[in-house]
Amino acid sequence: MALALMTKGWSVSRWVEAIEKAAPATDVRVWPDALGNVSNIDYALAWKPDHGELKRLPALKVVYSLGAGVDHLLTDPDLPDVPIVRVVEPDMTMRMSEYVIQHVLMHHRQQRLLDQWQRDKHWDGLVQWAASDLRVGIMGLGVLGADAARKLAMIGFRVRGWSQSHKVIDGVQCFAGAGEFDDFLGGTDILVCLLPHTAETEGILNAELFARLAKDGPLGGAVLINVGRGALQVETDILAALENGDLQAATLDVFQTEPLPQESPLWSHPRVTVTPHTAADSDPDTIVRGIMAQIERFERTGELENVVDPKRGY
Amino acid sequence: MALALMTKGWSVSRWVEAIEKAAPATDVRVWPDALGNVSNIDYALAWKPDHGELKRLPALKVVYSLGAGVDHLLTDPDLPDVPIVRVVEPDMTMRMSEYVIQHVLMHHRQQRLLDQWQRDKHWDGLVQWAASDLRVGIMGLGVLGADAARKLAMIGFRVRGWSQSHKVIDGVQCFAGAGEFDDFLGGTDILVCLLPHTAETEGILNAELFARLAKDGPLGGAVLINVGRGALQVETDILAALENGDLQAATLDVFQTEPLPQESPLWSHPRVTVTPHTAADSDPDTIVRGIMAQIERFERTGELENVVDPKRGY
Repeated sequence: MALALMTKGWSVSRWVEAIEKAAPATDVRVWPDALGNVSNIDYALAWKPDHGELKRLPALKVVYSLGAGVDHLLTDPDLPDVPIVRVVEPDMTMRMSEYVIQHVLMHHRQQRLLDQWQRDKHWDGLVQWAASDLRVGIMGLGVLGADAARKLAMIGFRVRGWSQSHKVIDGVQCFAGAGEFDDFLGGTDILVCLLPHTAETEGILNAELFARLAKDGPLGGAVLINVGRGALQVETDILAALENGDLQAATLDVFQTEPLPQESPLWSHPRVTVTPHTAADSDPDTIVRGIMAQIERFERTGELENVVDPKRGY
Repeated sequence: MALALMTKGWSVSRWVEAIEKAAPATDVRVWPDALGNVSNIDYALAWKPDHGELKRLPALKVVYSLGAGVDHLLTDPDLPDVPIVRVVEPDMTMRMSEYVIQHVLMHHRQQRLLDQWQRDKHWDGLVQWAASDLRVGIMGLGVLGADAARKLAMIGFRVRGWSQSHKVIDGVQCFAGAGEFDDFLGGTDILVCLLPHTAETEGILNAELFARLAKDGPLGGAVLINVGRGALQVETDILAALENGDLQAATLDVFQTEPLPQESPLWSHPRVTVTPHTAADSDPDTIVRGIMAQIERFERTGELENVVDPKRGY
C-alpha cells in the first residue's frame, strides 16, 4: 500500500516519522519531489497541495485532509472524484475547546485590563459579573462547535448556537438558518465563529454582522473570537467596528492572509489578540494514528467516516 | 431584628443597599460608628473587623463571614462563643472555577509566549501539547476545590487532588494527608492552591514544597496558582524558585500583604501574573440574599449550614 504525503508550509519530517511509527510497512511518497510511480499510489494525506496535483494520481482511492477544514481541497478545479475525508479527532476537538474556553474567559474576566493594572502596579476592586451574566454565541454547531458549547455551558455561561440545520444540545439555546440569525446575533455578547469556509460563509464576519451583535451586555460591547477560517472575516470591517463601537475586542487565530502580514494593524491593536493559527494544532502522531486506523478499516470493510459533501462544502 | 455590618477596606454602601434590597425591614447598624445600642444586635455580617469588636455585642447569635475564608475571625482572641458561618454560594464557587480554569489554560496554552510573539509580530508554528498531557494538582478539595477539579477534568486535564481527609471525586485522582503529599506533588505540573488559612497551612507554599513538584512535564517546569490565602505563600521563596528553576511561572491572586506593596518584585516579574484578589468576588446582592435566607431559616428552625469548626480552622 502506497501513500502520498502532500503538504505545503509544514515540516514534512514530523509527518513521515509519524506514519513510520503508526504503520511501519507503509510505502510513503513525499510530494512534490518523491512521488515515484504515481500509478500505484492508493491514498493521499493532504494539506494545501497545489491545485491539479491530486489529479496526477490515477489509482487514488481516498484523500484525507490533515486538518479539520477541507476548503483547500474543494477549491481545486481538478479535484479527483474520490471520497474526501476530514480529520475528526477527539484530540483536535479537545484542543479547539481549550482555546475557545480560554479566550472566552479572558474576555469575560477582563484579563487585558488586569494585565494593564499589573503593569501600572495598580491594586483596586474590580467590578466583575458572573459567567451566568454573559451570553456566548457559537456560529457552527458541528463536532467542534457542539463540544465548545457544552463545555462553556458547564462552566456557567449562557450559551446559544447557530447552524444551518437545527440542532439540539443540552443546555444550549439553538438557532438555525437565515430566519433566526438576527435573534441569535442580537442576544450574543461574545461571538465564537467555528463555521467552515464555503461560498455561503465567505466574508460573513463583516460590518453588517457586527452591527447586529448585542451592545447591552456587561462587557460594554460585543467581542469576536474567530477560530474558523480567515476567509470568513473582513479584516478592514473588524478594524472599523473596533473604532465605531460595534466590537469591543477581538481574538483572532485565523486571517485572510497567513502568515498575517507584518503591516497588518491587527498585530498592534490594543484590543486585538492575535495567535498564529494554533487553536487546534493536533500532533502528527495522533492525526496519523487515526488516519492509518481508518485506512486499515476501509481496506477491510470499504467503510469511511467523516466523508465531506462537496456540494455542502464540509 | 438588628444586624451589624462590620467590614474593613470595603465600600460599605453597596452592602447596606444589598441588605435593604434583600430584607427591607432589617435594622442595619454599620460598624464602627453607627452600631447604636449594641445590646440588641442579633447577627453580625463581618469581613476583617478589628479583633475584640465582636465581643462588644452581648446578644449576638451568629457571625456570618462575608467571604469564603474565616481566618480573619478565628484569629480574634476575643471571638464570642457563637456559631461562625462561612459563605458557600454557588455563584462564588462558579467564579472561583472560572478563574482557576482560565489561568490553568493560559499556562497550558503558553499565552504569555504568544503575547510576546504578538508584540514582536512573530508568526511561527507552536509546539503545543494537549490538556491530557498535563497534570493539574489541586490542594484543598472543599466545595471550591472539588468544583474546579471536576471542571478541569471535563476539559481534558489529568487532575489530581490533595486534602487532609480522603475524598472521592469522579475522574480525579485523590491523595490525602501527610503520607501521600510527596506522591501528589511529584506528579503535579500545575499546582492550584485552594487551602484555607490555618495554623497548619500557613507558609505551606515554600521552597521545600516547590522543590518537590514535577519538573518533567511539557511546560518545562512547575507552575503555581494561589487563589487560597496570601498567608499560605512565602513570597521570597516563590521569587527564588522562579530563579532556581523549581517554578517556571506563577499566578497569584492573594498576597502576604494586601494591597501588594508597590516595591514587591512580583508586580514586574515577567513570569508572574498578579491579580488584586479578584478570583471569586461575588456581588453583594448574591451573598446578602443567601445570608438573609439563612437567617430567616435559622429564626424559624434553629438550623444553620456551613458552620465553621474553630479547632479545624475551616
